[in-house]
Amino acid sequence: MTSINGDRLLADLDTLRDFGRYQTGVHRPTYTQIDMQARHWLMERMREAGLEPEIDGIGNVIGRAPGNRPKLLVGSHLETQNHAGWLDGALGVMYGLELARALPGQIDVAAWADEEGHFGTFLGSRSAVGEVSDAEIDAARNAHHGQPLREALAQAGLDGKPRTVIAPGTYAGYLEAHIEQGDDLEATGLRLGVVTSIVGIWTFRITFTGVQNHAGTTRMAIRKDAGAALVRLCSAVEHRLPTVAGPRSVWTVGRILLKPGAASIIPGGAEMLLQMRDADPDVLAAMESALHDLIAEANAAGPCSVTAECTFRSMPKVMNNGFQQALAHASAAYAPGAHQYMPSGAGHDAQILAQIMPAAMLFVPSIGGISHDIAEDTAREDIVLGCQVLAAGAAEILGT
Amino acid sequence: MTSINGDRLLADLDTLRDFGRYQTGVHRPTYTQIDMQARHWLMERMREAGLEPEIDGIGNVIGRAPGNRPKLLVGSHLETQNHAGWLDGALGVMYGLELARALPGQIDVAAWADEEGHFGTFLGSRSAVGEVSDAEIDAARNAHHGQPLREALAQAGLDGKPRTVIAPGTYAGYLEAHIEQGDDLEATGLRLGVVTSIVGIWTFRITFTGVQNHAGTTRMAIRKDAGAALVRLCSAVEHRLPTVAGPRSVWTVGRILLKPGAASIIPGGAEMLLQMRDADPDVLAAMESALHDLIAEANAAGPCSVTAECTFRSMPKVMNNGFQQALAHASAAYAPGAHQYMPSGAGHDAQILAQIMPAAMLFVPSIGGISHDIAEDTAREDIVLGCQVLAAGAAEILGT
Repeated sequence: MTSINGDRLLADLDTLRDFGRYQTGVHRPTYTQIDMQARHWLMERMREAGLEPEIDGIGNVIGRAPGNRPKLLVGSHLETQNHAGWLDGALGVMYGLELARALPGQIDVAAWADEEGHFGTFLGSRSAVGEVSDAEIDAARNAHHGQPLREALAQAGLDGKPRTVIAPGTYAGYLEAHIEQGDDLEATGLRLGVVTSIVGIWTFRITFTGVQNHAGTTRMAIRKDAGAALVRLCSAVEHRLPTVAGPRSVWTVGRILLKPGAASIIPGGAEMLLQMRDADPDVLAAMESALHDLIAEANAAGPCSVTAECTFRSMPKVMNNGFQQALAHASAAYAPGAHQYMPSGAGHDAQILAQIMPAAMLFVPSIGGISHDIAEDTAREDIVLGCQVLAAGAAEILGT
Repeated sequence: MTSINGDRLLADLDTLRDFGRYQTGVHRPTYTQIDMQARHWLMERMREAGLEPEIDGIGNVIGRAPGNRPKLLVGSHLETQNHAGWLDGALGVMYGLELARALPGQIDVAAWADEEGHFGTFLGSRSAVGEVSDAEIDAARNAHHGQPLREALAQAGLDGKPRTVIAPGTYAGYLEAHIEQGDDLEATGLRLGVVTSIVGIWTFRITFTGVQNHAGTTRMAIRKDAGAALVRLCSAVEHRLPTVAGPRSVWTVGRILLKPGAASIIPGGAEMLLQMRDADPDVLAAMESALHDLIAEANAAGPCSVTAECTFRSMPKVMNNGFQQALAHASAAYAPGAHQYMPSGAGHDAQILAQIMPAAMLFVPSIGGISHDIAEDTAREDIVLGCQVLAAGAAEILGT
């Protein structure tokens, strides 16, 4: 049987945690000095493990095993959200490194750049499947402070380096492990989740146009208050979407902006971001259709005008069935009765890699369901179990 | 009869418009270099008009007529909102200057600092009636970019200067003219508004506390979405307030903030500003009471907690009855059938000066009801008529 070294894995994760340690969590935004130090540290560990490491022009680190045997690609990402947790991304990369040690010659390891979206959307993995153009890189800016991506890449020493594109057929498939980020496993007393599909995410920017005016001298009857129009639509969404959503659908208004945003000025403009997620594209389509109905009703009722623009649309991605079964067999072997099949409510690099090769994901529990927060954690025995199960699943897939 | 010089008035207003001209409007924020240049330009004009000008430690400019005759104080403010109009405030100050020329020895002229609230609330006029402490000045910061008021005063050359406090009894009263900022006069074909009262303004900061979480992995049923709680309360306010409000009440949600404000994060916190205005304190109290009921209902329903804090509370201020009649007489004399009595939905320095002396206000029409915008304007014949009426009203009050 394929065995991993749990102590070595935990030691590596604890060392990686020091790159950007912030209280009990980690602050390691993409392309910052500390993020680049972590990437170079990983390359050293890859070399020690007998891999040939390479960092490309978008910051993807790939460690390749020598030889000509069929291989799996295993990985995740190294950078974190701002002031976030120590395991999100890091766990999956270090699992990959440990699998490369346990299955020599059969595992390549990847750390995809910017899964966390500081500068774009799945920049690293999309670049690796040939989806990112130079024009997209030219236009991209940091979501938090606006720094151009080109400038950040130059500061990170990555300008001029070519970007690596993986040809379909290079690998037998892709595996990614990740913390669950929800509380399903914990709530049901389980320790492993075999991911069936990754949800599609559709985000809409909804814009309201009214007339800006003085909040004291403009009678209620003649106002065209864009903020009031936004609240009415939000309220209607809250009532209508449940009638068309599925049992695991989620939707979120994460951002609202009133313009100009002063106590004494009737907002002349307003904007909100509405994001919907589901594993079923028909359910997503029904939710989008309901949104467009509500917007048409709002425009018919007046007095403000409303438009919606889809700013992000990823399709749900079903994980490879055979890979799922291999992960389930391994789960049953190492922790009988402790796994379940489940969808992923979060997006992951695996959904991008799945475009060019069979892919699957394994979840380990998040304590309290917390992620993107310094309190993010997973029991150490669950961390080790997850890696063992991923290694055994990989071995079954490879027929080792 | 007291006569003003309309051409001279318009020429002064046109010159003043060049201090910070921005497209068809003016950008002259309090204590900026261009604002200070305008104040010093005004002091020169005061000197030419035979007044003794003074600028005090808060930036108030007062021009005093020599002699011992009973006097009226006439004024308004010079600074503008950001990228706003050319008449708001400037009109009332230049009327004051023209009245000082038309009624020599009987008019002092004031330009109160920061009526527009870049750094505080009626800072200049409140300082002049003795309401502003040094501690308030120490704590005040610019509402738009956070610069400390002390720093702005130093840059404007005002640090170390004493602040002038006007003793009750100094003046027979205070007059202020202003653009209406609404469309009442225009809609009714009238040219002059005699203000009966200035509305009270009560502003509440309403804060919602939920739990920040991942917008993909957190099921709808267990969310504590502070943004959703805010929308529910806004919606309830929109339904409940009309049942207790008066016919001229207005209320506005001018600002909404979701924290952290990202598409993929369930807001853990949210904040809104709700402002209510009415000329009747009982109506304001009924509206506040309805708000507190709605907040109690929201807290009882959960899952988020809601609190409200009153951040601003000015009481309605009734204008002096005799002064109102004098302005109405003058209106009837110069433009028969073209005036009405009306409340002011906006706050003005007159409500502060009214605390220490009889006060009244005269409105001229705003074209299209527009103010705080570069399109703000008033017909030139209405500008001249307003000044003539204010002068004639002042003469009647002074018994000249």
